[in-house]
Amino acid sequence: NLYCRGACDDKGQTMLVFKALESLMAVDGTLPVNVRVLIEGEEEAGGESIDSYVRTYPDRLKCDTAFICDTHMPSKDTPALICGLRGIIYTEVEVRGAKHDLHSGSYGGVAPNPLHTLAIIITGLKDAEGHIHIPGLYDKLRESTEQEKAFWRDDPLHIEKSLLEEMGVSQLTGEAEHPALERIWARPTLEVHGIVGGFTGEGAKTVIPAVAKAKISLRLPPDLKSDEVFTLFERRVKELAPAGVEVTVHNVHGGESVLVPIDTPPMQAASAALKETYGKEPVCIREGGSIPIAALFYEILGVPVVLMGFGLPDDNLHAPNEKYSLSQFFKGVRTVARFLQNMGK
Amino acid sequence: NLYCRGACDDKGQTMLVFKALESLMAVDGTLPVNVRVLIEGEEEAGGESIDSYVRTYPDRLKCDTAFICDTHMPSKDTPALICGLRGIIYTEVEVRGAKHDLHSGSYGGVAPNPLHTLAIIITGLKDAEGHIHIPGLYDKLRESTEQEKAFWRDDPLHIEKSLLEEMGVSQLTGEAEHPALERIWARPTLEVHGIVGGFTGEGAKTVIPAVAKAKISLRLPPDLKSDEVFTLFERRVKELAPAGVEVTVHNVHGGESVLVPIDTPPMQAASAALKETYGKEPVCIREGGSIPIAALFYEILGVPVVLMGFGLPDDNLHAPNEKYSLSQFFKGVRTVARFLQNMGK
Repeated sequence: NLYCRGACDDKGQTMLVFKALESLMAVDGTLPVNVRVLIEGEEEAGGESIDSYVRTYPDRLKCDTAFICDTHMPSKDTPALICGLRGIIYTEVEVRGAKHDLHSGSYGGVAPNPLHTLAIIITGLKDAEGHIHIPGLYDKLRESTEQEKAFWRDDPLHIEKSLLEEMGVSQLTGEAEHPALERIWARPTLEVHGIVGGFTGEGAKTVIPAVAKAKISLRLPPDLKSDEVFTLFERRVKELAPAGVEVTVHNVHGGESVLVPIDTPPMQAASAALKETYGKEPVCIREGGSIPIAALFYEILGVPVVLMGFGLPDDNLHAPNEKYSLSQFFKGVRTVARFLQNMGK
Repeated sequence: NLYCRGACDDKGQTMLVFKALESLMAVDGTLPVNVRVLIEGEEEAGGESIDSYVRTYPDRLKCDTAFICDTHMPSKDTPALICGLRGIIYTEVEVRGAKHDLHSGSYGGVAPNPLHTLAIIITGLKDAEGHIHIPGLYDKLRESTEQEKAFWRDDPLHIEKSLLEEMGVSQLTGEAEHPALERIWARPTLEVHGIVGGFTGEGAKTVIPAVAKAKISLRLPPDLKSDEVFTLFERRVKELAPAGVEVTVHNVHGGESVLVPIDTPPMQAASAALKETYGKEPVCIREGGSIPIAALFYEILGVPVVLMGFGLPDDNLHAPNEKYSLSQFFKGVRTVARFLQNMGK
């Protein structure tokens, strides 16, 4: 039995799995293994329903393997199995100053400015060198294997070069004492996604807003638990806020990291399928993103979770002009069909 | 001859002047002095046209006094003449990181984040104690008179209490070593008005924006010139920007401060008019806001500029639910009519 999970934002990778299933049925009149499909329509909104469903009905979901097709390859010639994902907490930090918006001519210099307070909080959380200043955050960070450390240091797939090209920048930011691959895959990171409040139209308005909010997330490598990190985060934000403002920290959603062992039969089946399509052994790497359902399957169902996907670095993930390569789509269909056949053996 | 200037955002105070002119004409069939009215429809957009008009045609604008009805009283029982206004520079600081928006799962930890860069720039420009860190900014600041310093220190009109009440806060922010009145009227101040970029809708999106902008203004007491301060500001912003991002500083608009002598005949005429309406001598105070045309009249036309107005502290200036008191409107009409009669004597 195999559970295949589709999500709302995997850019057609669920369609690719359906296409593989349909094609196998058309050719053979049957499938090599029993397949049940679980569709998640809420991942970008936090995935609360599927989380609760999996926790409530683990018996209904009994299977030998879970399969998630939602990840990337380092380049179009480098097939990959994903052995690790980071968890996440997504928060909103809300700062309230005066009881209503103010004019900077009359109140500038004596009024609390929630936008300035947010700038103080944000720079207090993370400095210009990428170090996160949240006491306790790094305490539980799991030590990585020497093999992974060597991979990050040596970067044999030249992923750092591809990151620079994709971003169109001359240098990377962040913790210089850690290799770039470790930073994106295995270090906690903190990013600001948007700041709401004040005047953001064209031209000039000299308002000091009464309220402002920042959307801030952290990516969490194993074993940083989202609930524990939220508590540390909230405490630190309140500590950073100057007197005279009211600060509220909202936990918008959280999800856990996962590390998948590579020496299981399902992973071997996936590896062989990728090798057949792409003509070379797949690499086993991590991704820096978060697929909370992967950690949940692993924890609740206790089965191997195969994370395989066919996205490319230049897909503009979650950005304008997002795309998905047709050639990757059809290679993906072939690989998934072969994976299911291998699983049946 | 008297020039009377009306502006687009003076909340009916120009209408009040027209009402006074109309009523004097109805009663006397004539006005006690020649009056010409100059309407400014662009003040909130920077006032470029009127600036250029006044500089180009000073001869057409020859007069004995300029009168601007656009200011406030400290309370409804305390008439005021304004003897000083701050200048302003309004800027946009634009930060560019990667060539397009990025996903924080894939790039968090190595990508430039323009929102984080803005937070670094903003806290580098002004610290939590309200000190502005722009080298050279305070060098030319004019020393104030002992009389003004005593007024700021003693605050006989309890303006600090009224500021706290209007804002609904328990304490004021800013430079603790300067009295609150000095901070809002005679110190340079720096405020952030809005931050554009990234995701600001409801819920969560883990984007790292390619571009973000902050709207930042400074209020400038005498003798800080807007052009000179913009140069210092731009240099400091670029110095604060970390490597790997591109920073542009836009000068949206600027305007100069003004200090008006109070011992001139027009100011005496205004003072007597206020005393007659409100039953007490007006106070001569500054305002922290900016009316660039006042400085321009003073500089180019070389005449006294009478700044009198009837706004109240709880008018919610430039904020939601802005209002103007009818009783102040009618007292204003009476005061302006009396001012014109006094000028005619």
